[in-house]
Amino acid sequence: MEEASRPKEKTMEEAKGFVRRVLLFKFKAETAPDHIEQLIKDHSNLVNLVESLKSWHMGKDVSVKYSNEGFTHVIELTFESTEGIAAYMGHPAHLEMHERIWPHLEKIVVIDYKPTPLCN
Amino acid sequence: MEEASRPKEKTMEEAKGFVRRVLLFKFKAETAPDHIEQLIKDHSNLVNLVESLKSWHMGKDVSVKYSNEGFTHVIELTFESTEGIAAYMGHPAHLEMHERIWPHLEKIVVIDYKPTPLCN
Repeated sequence: MEEASRPKEKTMEEAKGFVRRVLLFKFKAETAPDHIEQLIKDHSNLVNLVESLKSWHMGKDVSVKYSNEGFTHVIELTFESTEGIAAYMGHPAHLEMHERIWPHLEKIVVIDYKPTPLCN
Repeated sequence: MEEASRPKEKTMEEAKGFVRRVLLFKFKAETAPDHIEQLIKDHSNLVNLVESLKSWHMGKDVSVKYSNEGFTHVIELTFESTEGIAAYMGHPAHLEMHERIWPHLEKIVVIDYKPTPLCN
């Protein structure tokens, strides 16, 4: 079929075998929206402070149905390697950010994986 | 500081304002690993069957600590628009895949968002 022949680009990220960390946040009801915005903005600055963190992206939930389990924010972090994640975890800027955000979270999921395209 | 001046590339995806769907799966203990592999492989073929689905990536959990909440597989889907997600949701190939995977899931999170880089 026609769609099957669509060219699939191999991105630089895929070529390097990068590692992605996805964080899902649900903030506590008592945390003010302005404060959430500030925390997210400050978190984005980690890409400027931590060498092993190669990219930072965030999006708010825009699901129309299905099971988002109440999570409202998704943060995508990209590292060149799992060692890069370890360096990030121990970095003072991350540790400080962790301490500031953690008390405001009702729940969180953090998962690391190496995204690959699988083709039949 | 030096890191702050690293150039940040704007990818084609960002330029288009794409929408991402992330799925986190935890399969039931009774589902055989080979069957899980087959389900994931068949799911990957949706990128060849559903026009609005622009990319498909998957990674198994490689977290070393923290809170992955037992999820073992992450699937990233990319669409050009939220309308593209709606088209995917109603596509027969997706509906069939949904019916096949659902009975094997102990839990799932599905969340849609528009990833953007936020800079201070």
